[in-house]
This record gives sequence, structure tokens and C-alpha cells, in this order.
Amino acid sequence: MSKGTVVLSYSGGLDTSCILVWLKEQCYDVIAFMANIGQNEDFEAARNKAESLGAKKVFIEDLRTEFVEDFIWPAIQANAVYEDRYLLGTALARPCIARRQVEIARREGAHFVSHGATGKGNDQIRFELTCYTLYPEVKIIAPWRIPEFYNRFRGRTDLMEYAQIHAPADLYLMTKNPEDSPSIPDVLEIEFKNGMPVKVTNVKEGTSKDSPLDIFSYLNEIGGKHGIGRIDIVENRFIGMKSRGIYETPGGTILINAHLDIETFTMDKEVRRIKQGLGVKFSELVYNGFWYSPECDFVRHCIAKSQENVEGKVQLSLFKGQIYILGRESAKSLYNEELVSMDIQGDYDPCDASGFIRINAVRFALISP
Amino acid sequence: MSKGTVVLSYSGGLDTSCILVWLKEQCYDVIAFMANIGQNEDFEAARNKAESLGAKKVFIEDLRTEFVEDFIWPAIQANAVYEDRYLLGTALARPCIARRQVEIARREGAHFVSHGATGKGNDQIRFELTCYTLYPEVKIIAPWRIPEFYNRFRGRTDLMEYAQIHAPADLYLMTKNPEDSPSIPDVLEIEFKNGMPVKVTNVKEGTSKDSPLDIFSYLNEIGGKHGIGRIDIVENRFIGMKSRGIYETPGGTILINAHLDIETFTMDKEVRRIKQGLGVKFSELVYNGFWYSPECDFVRHCIAKSQENVEGKVQLSLFKGQIYILGRESAKSLYNEELVSMDIQGDYDPCDASGFIRINAVRFALISP
Amino acid sequence: MSKGTVVLSYSGGLDTSCILVWLKEQCYDVIAFMANIGQNEDFEAARNKAESLGAKKVFIEDLRTEFVEDFIWPAIQANAVYEDRYLLGTALARPCIARRQVEIARREGAHFVSHGATGKGNDQIRFELTCYTLYPEVKIIAPWRIPEFYNRFRGRTDLMEYAQIHAPADLYLMTKNPEDSPSIPDVLEIEFKNGMPVKVTNVKEGTSKDSPLDIFSYLNEIGGKHGIGRIDIVENRFIGMKSRGIYETPGGTILINAHLDIETFTMDKEVRRIKQGLGVKFSELVYNGFWYSPECDFVRHCIAKSQENVEGKVQLSLFKGQIYILGRESAKSLYNEELVSMDIQGDYDPCDASGFIRINAVRFALISP
Amino acid sequence: MSKGTVVLSYSGGLDTSCILVWLKEQCYDVIAFMANIGQNEDFEAARNKAESLGAKKVFIEDLRTEFVEDFIWPAIQANAVYEDRYLLGTALARPCIARRQVEIARREGAHFVSHGATGKGNDQIRFELTCYTLYPEVKIIAPWRIPEFYNRFRGRTDLMEYAQIHAPADLYLMTKNPEDSPSIPDVLEIEFKNGMPVKVTNVKEGTSKDSPLDIFSYLNEIGGKHGIGRIDIVENRFIGMKSRGIYETPGGTILINAHLDIETFTMDKEVRRIKQGLGVKFSELVYNGFWYSPECDFVRHCIAKSQENVEGKVQLSLFKGQIYILGRESAKSLYNEELVSMDIQGDYDPCDASGFIRINAVRFALISP
Repeated sequence: MSKGTVVLSYSGGLDTSCILVWLKEQCYDVIAFMANIGQNEDFEAARNKAESLGAKKVFIEDLRTEFVEDFIWPAIQANAVYEDRYLLGTALARPCIARRQVEIARREGAHFVSHGATGKGNDQIRFELTCYTLYPEVKIIAPWRIPEFYNRFRGRTDLMEYAQIHAPADLYLMTKNPEDSPSIPDVLEIEFKNGMPVKVTNVKEGTSKDSPLDIFSYLNEIGGKHGIGRIDIVENRFIGMKSRGIYETPGGTILINAHLDIETFTMDKEVRRIKQGLGVKFSELVYNGFWYSPECDFVRHCIAKSQENVEGKVQLSLFKGQIYILGRESAKSLYNEELVSMDIQGDYDPCDASGFIRINAVRFALISP
Repeated sequence: MSKGTVVLSYSGGLDTSCILVWLKEQCYDVIAFMANIGQNEDFEAARNKAESLGAKKVFIEDLRTEFVEDFIWPAIQANAVYEDRYLLGTALARPCIARRQVEIARREGAHFVSHGATGKGNDQIRFELTCYTLYPEVKIIAPWRIPEFYNRFRGRTDLMEYAQIHAPADLYLMTKNPEDSPSIPDVLEIEFKNGMPVKVTNVKEGTSKDSPLDIFSYLNEIGGKHGIGRIDIVENRFIGMKSRGIYETPGGTILINAHLDIETFTMDKEVRRIKQGLGVKFSELVYNGFWYSPECDFVRHCIAKSQENVEGKVQLSLFKGQIYILGRESAKSLYNEELVSMDIQGDYDPCDASGFIRINAVRFALISP
Repeated sequence: MSKGTVVLSYSGGLDTSCILVWLKEQCYDVIAFMANIGQNEDFEAARNKAESLGAKKVFIEDLRTEFVEDFIWPAIQANAVYEDRYLLGTALARPCIARRQVEIARREGAHFVSHGATGKGNDQIRFELTCYTLYPEVKIIAPWRIPEFYNRFRGRTDLMEYAQIHAPADLYLMTKNPEDSPSIPDVLEIEFKNGMPVKVTNVKEGTSKDSPLDIFSYLNEIGGKHGIGRIDIVENRFIGMKSRGIYETPGGTILINAHLDIETFTMDKEVRRIKQGLGVKFSELVYNGFWYSPECDFVRHCIAKSQENVEGKVQLSLFKGQIYILGRESAKSLYNEELVSMDIQGDYDPCDASGFIRINAVRFALISP
Repeated sequence: MSKGTVVLSYSGGLDTSCILVWLKEQCYDVIAFMANIGQNEDFEAARNKAESLGAKKVFIEDLRTEFVEDFIWPAIQANAVYEDRYLLGTALARPCIARRQVEIARREGAHFVSHGATGKGNDQIRFELTCYTLYPEVKIIAPWRIPEFYNRFRGRTDLMEYAQIHAPADLYLMTKNPEDSPSIPDVLEIEFKNGMPVKVTNVKEGTSKDSPLDIFSYLNEIGGKHGIGRIDIVENRFIGMKSRGIYETPGGTILINAHLDIETFTMDKEVRRIKQGLGVKFSELVYNGFWYSPECDFVRHCIAKSQENVEGKVQLSLFKGQIYILGRESAKSLYNEELVSMDIQGDYDPCDASGFIRINAVRFALISP
């Protein structure tokens, strides 16, 4: 007698294969769901594996475009960086993947969803908060939090964990070691509209990309070639543990740098201060798994509003792991060369600055030592 | 008949030389004051020049140690970055210089101080707010805001300004072009105590520095050698204009990166969130010239308090304009390898995470679409 | 020979009458402009006075509706309170008045505007920032900052100032002394939509008002009758001085209390936290005179967005200077009686709270003494 | 065979009496612990009851002084108000009570603590987070989260809950109905030092109190007499539910009002802005149960630092549920009557305001419509 149908987020790897088999042992019908968000994977091999392990159905879904448009682009608009350093790659992917998984579960009449995230990490939270919001009645099976499962399978994972921690050099899949990267920079021009990239041009080669997915893929590729976006950090998980993370985000790193530049060029100073605070909040919400919360929705709305005039082109070069901003231009620029120039006075009366400074000092006279 | 004595912040250059002469023409006795904060300058030549132009006295003051200890170190503790990018070099130097200038003015019985900062920039504000706080009765003469002065001398400055804007390649004095920098990284270990650097070791060479000034000078030197810390940005001045800035901060860039790393390693997550907000505030205050304000004093106190356990060592490599964190260690680490490890469960019960997630989702059930 | 036309913000009082005459002496053509924002004033007497003093034209404009709809309602949505106590009455009126004054100036081809605000206060800033934004080329004549004017007229003002400070009991124009107010409460029901009041009903009398101006006027009247909204505070002016303020805001005080209640009832907790911070920012901007700034525009947009579900009815009683919330109801309520009740468990599993608490304590184990 | 000793937070009421008996049934040795934090209670009757129900020992601890000094005073310094309205009474008491309970548990060698807080509320969290921090190895027994307990006893609680919700008029124990309160105000003078009350004087009667406990008790009494501090609100619990709360906080309401007044009088404007943000954070932390967290400790330190000059006397009257500030005086006042006065110019040059305003408008010229 089946307990019902469960949609399992399946990776093709050892972990979720064990889970698939175990779920079947527990008398569930298992639908394997794989999301293609741009990772390098042999999806057909994974499909065969899932089927051979007893999956009733296998769904392989290409989410690459919606991942870039619905999740990465808003993060770029927000200059989203967690704890000053982490660019939120996985944190952005989780709600995208879980959204589709829940759609499949609803469509297939499945009352259960399952995943291979561990019981100490962030991904379980990101996954499950999304599910609880979009499908409140769903039951979630998280085997790595179920003693019967983890007591049986822990050994194997230990090994993998060990391998991962002790061999960081092999961890990098997308980026070249900067020491081995080209000695000649590539020069790019990235164009933004509404704070989102709409075109990237390789200036020397004269080639360009203009769909969101193409832009992002290209920046990952060329950023990777120059060893851009590697970090080794300690971060604070939502559940309060510190963990070490080694990440590579070549495309995201280029985009955040370019966006930050065009934003400062076109956005009013004080609007930007407020928006900066909202961006910090956004980053924290996304990291913690609250993409589909009312507060994240609200913050996204506000940030999007702030981006209405963030448009123009940024020129930059990539070289040995580093990004150099070379210049920027925009029809919406608030940089006024004449106003700032020392040789043109225009409407600006330097005497006003005296009053400005003295008024700012009024408070100090009272407190002065 | 003398109008009295003015202490002029003198650079030895064309600008402040003009001002010196003009002040004398206006019947002031002029004391020239030069601050050595580590810039490359022929101070004795400048002294001779000032004297030959008619300075009554010349003071050349070595402020290098107090600049590093009293101003740069607190900025490192704060991870002080203005508008996400600018490391505040000049903004930190101004209150240090003005503090000494005011001391001299008081000691010498001068009722006036003067400077060569322009009427559109930030430095005039930083300089004058410091003076108004530390010497409220002082009169400030800012020639670049006085029509009789700037109408007469503007032409010459135009030229300099022009040169500066159109020749950025020559602007870099401390840093090598990353393309020309060594192909072999240097590896450093920086040790912190109370969030302040106490020692830097070149791991390969085995050499080390342990006084604040030596540490900072060494990091400027070795960072410069690897082309670290160049930026080309548009920033928002306090007076509301956007301006383009090209900066190089090799030592500061290394220190901020290392400090950020050891801080995240040793500081509680939620304390850090609050402190991060205070750091943003601090950066803005310093940029705007409010170092000697009650609010900056308060924020510095709070930040210093947060640094009590920020100690340990960070290993990093410098290569082609980039800094790579290699690792960190600390007796005050809050990173608990056992707690975070997948193979050891310890006191942590993964089932708790289920409750944690479900309680976090309580709000969403009510709002779910 | 006329120097041109100036539109003067005219009150009918001694101050601006002196200014009118002085402006004429200075060879300006003067247009007197009076704004009716609900104050008790004999506008026709003022018109005659202005004309007899030589005003070329007199405009008396009824701004009451736009003042309530465009300025007060957004402040209610924001729960706008400056420094935890001041409800911003005058600060909201200033941009409303200056906006119309600038419209008249443009229409009448006047290149000058003038006002009677003093040189130490906030109103000069609120007035002038509005003018500079909406009519950047305008020239502003602020006689209380012009030595020839204030040296001549200071004496007279001293007297008025003195009177004002030393006779606060007479200052209250709208509110009864609570000790003399009725011994029987009035009970009101205020209905909100989009965070704005749409109807007020006097429950006992069965009467109601439903246009913005009627609602606000009625609340001022009935609040005044019960002595609601008097405060005696020290506040921080934008220019850095502390000043004493004695205010009465009967209608505003009732509305802020009712709005706060319905907002907490219908708005998600975490959205409200973010919105609360934006409201503090909004209050500061309005107080300082930045209504027509890009940042205030941005903040208003975000706050309005947050109010989409803020609707429902609040019951309250007014008695002896105090407002008591009696209850609230809303179709958009997020208060779930069943969920919160101890006797119904529903979907909520109390065991989840154990996990929630333990995960929240994970950080503490590491730091525990 | 005993499972060990449990220290139970005992109230003397039905709930915790049931728990006491049930714990004994579950083979625990029970120590009953009662905290006197100023509530009206027959402690000796409760002692007898606990003993008759089988408590091995009974501890009745007078925590009144430490509650006021260690918990309420810091909350006054912070102007701690949760969600703009709630004064945190219970939230402050919980860590005080749990701290002593844990001390007793350690001293008596008990490995367990227990409490009668429900599974949907805030108190369970406040209690347990304190225990986990101060006694990390302790085991907590929360019967209202244990199915065997709550399934058996739920019926009885339903009744109590029902009574509580449907009879709010009887809920008020400390405050008179404002309608029945005296028609003659009492006038108080409260003196502060370091932001903490050090003396309260009834001006008409000439009596005064000067120990923390006496001050607080007196303000509760006289505030209660005048019907001060009643509120009926909806609030957001930490676990994400909204709940209705009816509170009375006479002493706290008076103190927060008086403290706010003297603080604004003596604290620099910009320090206060930063401190205000920290106060909001503090309120949230305390409400959520994080008194003994590193971040709350940090925030308390910063707030205490801000209070160094917050001293002086505030005069106020109490009348029919309302507090009216009558005046304030302080040796540390930053209110400068001469500076703010219109008739004295002093060092302040009103012309400076023109420059101040124009510089503030520099940004707007670029964006003007």
C-alpha cells in the first residue's frame, strides 16, 4: 500500500539516490525532479539512473532563463552581498528550484516533497520555507533530519564531506586559477536598463549578447577564464553556526561591480543610502530562505522602484582575478562635469559652503571641550 | 599693521604658495604648517620655499604615527568603506592634520587658520568642522571661497585641474600597474588584537613588522608592489555633487580584507549585524568631515567595544592587484568544526531544525496565495 | 524702476506686513499670497490690509483639501512622528504652501519669492528647499536673514517672541484644557482604506463624515473638545539648535493612534519592521524640509506600497486628553483567533516551538560563561 | 526511582499546581520556585500549597530590587517600546526570574527546569533562551508542549483562557479606570542621573523616594491612582502570530515619558538618532527573549554609554490617564536659550543659513522637473 506520492529534488548523485531508494522502501511513490539551472550535468544519465532506481516519473526542467530573470537580476539590482562578501549563488537557486518542484507536486497530486539537504545547513530552510508558502498543506520529508535515515547513511556522507573540506583546489569548476589565467585583459562593456543588464559587448572582439541567459552565461564563461570571483570565507548560517564556504561566482561578481558603478552614477545620493539599507536586508532575507516572504516581496518592490533611472554603459577589464572599472556613461547620469569642475562656477556660489559648514558646526560649539 | 597671525596648511605646491603670498598681501603674519602623514615630499625644500615667500615661521610635523594609530586603526575596526567602495584615505587624514594645526594656532596665539581646499569639495568641510570643534573661536580663511582670491587665481588652477583629469595614468604614486606586477604572489600573515593589526609577517621571507606605523608602511609598500587597491569611481560628495575619484589604497585594502575575515570568524553573528550598521554610519561621518562630532565619538566607542574578541591571524596572498584569503586561526574563534560537521552530531539535534522552519513559516500560512 | 515682482507669503500679521512695506521700499512689486490651510483667520481683512500697504495683487488660496489629501494623509500612513513625539503639523504645511506660491510666481512671471520665516528656524529651510526644487531659477528674499532688515525690525519681534514664550496657556487655540473638557467620552469609529481614513463615525450620535477634509476637520474639532494632542517638548531643529515647542494636534493625534492600530492588525510583522524604519526616515525628511526631495519621494512610494492591505475599522474613545483604543475589525486582518487560541491547536504543533527555541540558542552555547 | 530533580517556576495557581503534580507522577523530585517581582500574591499560602502537593523544597525569592535595577532601568534608558506601543513588562521579568531559577537549579544540583508557559506564546522562549545561555546543559520540561500533558489538561485551561478574553474590565489590577480617577492632578518631579531615575518628588505633598525599588513602586501606585498606562493592542509574537494584549504599566509609562524628555534635552541630536535605532533593536531583542544574548549585551553597553550626560529633573502632572510634561531643567542641558532666541544673535550669523539651504539644494537642481 503506497503512502502517497513524493516529489524528490534529485541531483543524480549518491545522496539523493540513497534517498530515492529509501523513500520507496518507506512505501512512497517517488517522482524525481531535476532542475537545470546551468550546472554542468549529464541529465539523461541522471534520468536513467532515477528510473532504474524505481522513480515513477522523472522531470528534468530547464529553469535557466527564469533563474536569471526572476532571481539573479533582482539580486544584481540589490547589489546583494551577504555579510559583505558572499554573492548568494545557491541561496538564489533554492526558491527557484522549489517553486517548480511545488508546481509539479500540485499538478501530479503529490502531497509530499523531499530533498537531500542536511539538517545543519541553510538549504533545508530555503527549500522548505518556499514550499510552506507556495503549498501550505504539503508534507516535507527531510531524510537527513530523520534518525532512521541518517543513522544508517551517515558513514558515507562523512567521507564525501571529508573529501570536500580537504581538497578545495578541486572545488573550483567554473574559474581558472588566476595564476594560470590569460596575461591579456578582456575589455567588456555592459549596458543596463532599470538596473538590469541588457547587453554585454566584448570590446576587442566586437561580439555581444543581449538575452538575460546569454549575458549571464557569457559573463560566467569569460569571468571564469580570468579567474574572477573566487572567495574563501567563514559565514554565519541562519541557524547560528559559523561555517567555511569556498565559492566562485564569476558572472555575478562582474555584474555586481558594474551595477554598483552605474547605480552610483545615476541614482541620487540619499535615495541610494536608503536603498543600500534595503539591499542589506534583502541579502539577509535571501540567504536565510525568505525569498517568498511578504517582507522580501516588499523589499524587492522598493528596490525595483529605485532602479528606474539606473541605465547606461559600464566599461571594465578583466585580468588575473580582478575587475577594473574603466569608465561609464549614461543619459540619466547625475554627474555634472560643469558643476563639479573647478574652472566653471556656474550657479554654484562657493561662499554658500561657508554657511553650510558653519551651520553644521552649530551643534559643536555647545559640546566643545 | 598686521591683522594678526594665520596658520596656513601648506603643501609646498603652487596653490598654497599663492595663498601664502596673498595672505601676506592681506596683511596677515603667516605661519606655514606642513604635516608629514607619509606622503613622498621634500620637506626641507618646502620649508625653504615657505620662508622665502615670507612665512614668519614654518612647522613641519611628523604625524605619521598618530595618523595610523588614532585614525586608520579605528577605520579598520569599522571596516570603513564609503558608498561600498571608497576607503577614506584623505577623509581620515584631514582631522589628523587639522587637529595639529589648531594646536599650533592656540600655542602661537594665532586667531586665524587657512587652507587651500576648494569651495566645491569635501576637504574644506573636514578641515573646518575639525577646527570649529577644537577651537570654536578661530576664524577660518578659505581663499578658494573668497571672490577676490579665486577670481584672480582661477586660471592657473584650471590648468592643473585639467592636467589631473586628463592624465590619470600618472596619478598612481604608490601602486604598480597590476599588469606589470610580479608573477609570483607574496604570502602574508596578519595578526590582530582588539580588531587592530599588531603584526605582519611575510611568510616566505620570514620578515615581520610589529609597530603600527611599520605595519602600515610595509603593507602600503608590498601592496603597491602587487598593484593592490586601485579604484576608479564616481562618488557623492557631502555637498551633493557627484565627482569622479581615482584612488589607490594598497595597505588599507589589504587590512580591511583581513580584518573583515578575522571579525566574521570571532564575532557573534548578530553583534556583527549591528556593528555593520554602525560601520556604515561611521564611514559616512568620516567622509563628511564629522570625525570630531559627538555622534562619531559615540559610534567609535561602540565599534571599539565590539572588537574586544577580534583577534587571531589571517593568511593571505597578494597577486596581480588581488588579495586572496588563504585561511585564519584564532583562540577566540566561534567557528566550531565539530558543531558544523556533518559526521558529528554532538548536542545538535537535526530534528530541531524542523520545528525552527515550521515556526518561521507560521506567518506565511496566513498570507499564502 | 522696479527690480521685479516678488510673491510674498503673507500672513496678515505684523511681521509680514513690515516685510511687504520693506520690499516695496526696496523697489519690488509685491504680490501678497495667503494660504488657507484651515487656520482661523479673517482673510478679507488681511486682503484689505495687504492692498492698503501697497500690494499689487493679493491671492488668497484655499489649500485645505490638498493639504489634507497630499500631505497629511501620507504622514498618517507613515505614522510620522519626529523624535518620538512631534506630529509635524507645520512641517507638513510648508511644502504645500510653497508649492502654490511657486505656481503663482511662475504664472505671474515673478522672479522672486519672499517669506517671513526667521533665520534660526526650520520653516525657512522647508520653504526654500521646496522653492529651489520646483522653481530652480527663483531668487529668494528672506528678510530675517538680511542685516538691513533685521537690524531695523528686531526690537518689535523681540517683544512678540517674549510674549509667546511667557504665556503658553494662551497658545492653545484648538484644544480645551483637559481639566475643563467633558466628563463623558465620545466614541468614534474610524474606517481606513489603503492606510488612509475614509470615514469617521460618532458612534453615539450616529453622525459621520467621509471626505478627507471633513474627516480631518471633524477630528480636530472633537479632539479639541476633549483636550487631545497637547505637547510641551524640546526638539532638535535641523540647524542643530534645540528649541522648545508647544504644540496641539488633536486630529493628527487621533489619526496616528487609530492608524497604528489598524496597521498592526493587517500588516505582516516583518514588513512592518521595515516600514517602521522608513517612517522614521520620512519624519526626519519632512521635519527638515525635504518633502520634494528624491529620497522623500522614494520613501513615500515605498510606504504607500506597504499600505495596500491596511483597511478596516478602529473604535476608540476620547476622554480628558486621552485616546483609548476599544477594538478593531478588518476583512484583511492577519489576526487569527483560532491560531492564537490556547484551546484550539489546528495546524500548529507546539512541539515545533522546542526546536525553534533550541535552534535560536545554538549561538549561545559557544559564548556561554 | 527518581528521574532527578526539577526546579519548577511555580505561581501558586491552577496551571503550575497541575504541572507540579504531573512532574511528580513522572517521577521527578520537584523544587517549587516562586519569584516576587512585585506582584500582589499570598506567598505563604502558595508555599503551603506547593508543599502539600509534594514539593521537596520551596524557594520564595524577593527579586524586586534586582528586577528594577538590572532590568527595568536599562529599559527606561533605552526608551524601550515594542512595536511603538508595548512597554515590555513581562518580557523584562522573564530573564530576571529565569536567572534566579537557574542559580537555584545549579546550587541544588537539579538537571531539569520547568515552567507553565504555553506552547504558542513568547514567555516559553524568554524563559528557555535564558536557561540555555546561563546553564547550557540543563534539560527543560515544558509540559504545555508535551502531548501527554496538554491533551489531558487542556480542557481546564480553555476555561481560564475564555474567562480572560471575555472579561477584560476585571483584568486591570494596578490602574483605576480613568473615568473614576481623581479630578485633581498630582504633580511630580523626577530626577535622573545617567539616564536612570534617582529620585521622585510629589511636589504638592513634598514627599519623595530615592531608592530604585521605592521610586518604581511609588510611580506604579500614583500612576495607577490616575489610571495611567492602560493599552489594548494587537501585537506580533516572536513566533509570527498576532495576539491581542491588554496591559497596564503605570510606573513604566511615566518613566519612559519623563526619560524621553530629559534625554532630548541633554543628548546631542545625532547621537540620539543612532541611539534611537539601538533602542528599537533592544526592544525587539527583549520582547523576543534575547536579554542574555551577545547582541543584547552589546546594545545595552552602547545605550548605557549614550546616557552619561542624561541627567536633570522633569516636572510632570498626572491626570485622568494622561501625563503632561510641565518642564525640565539640567546642568547638562544642551538647550541654549540665547542661541535659539530671536532677539539675541550672538555668534550665530543668519546669513549662514542661506548657504546651508542652497548647498542642501545642490542635488535638486539636477533632478528638478
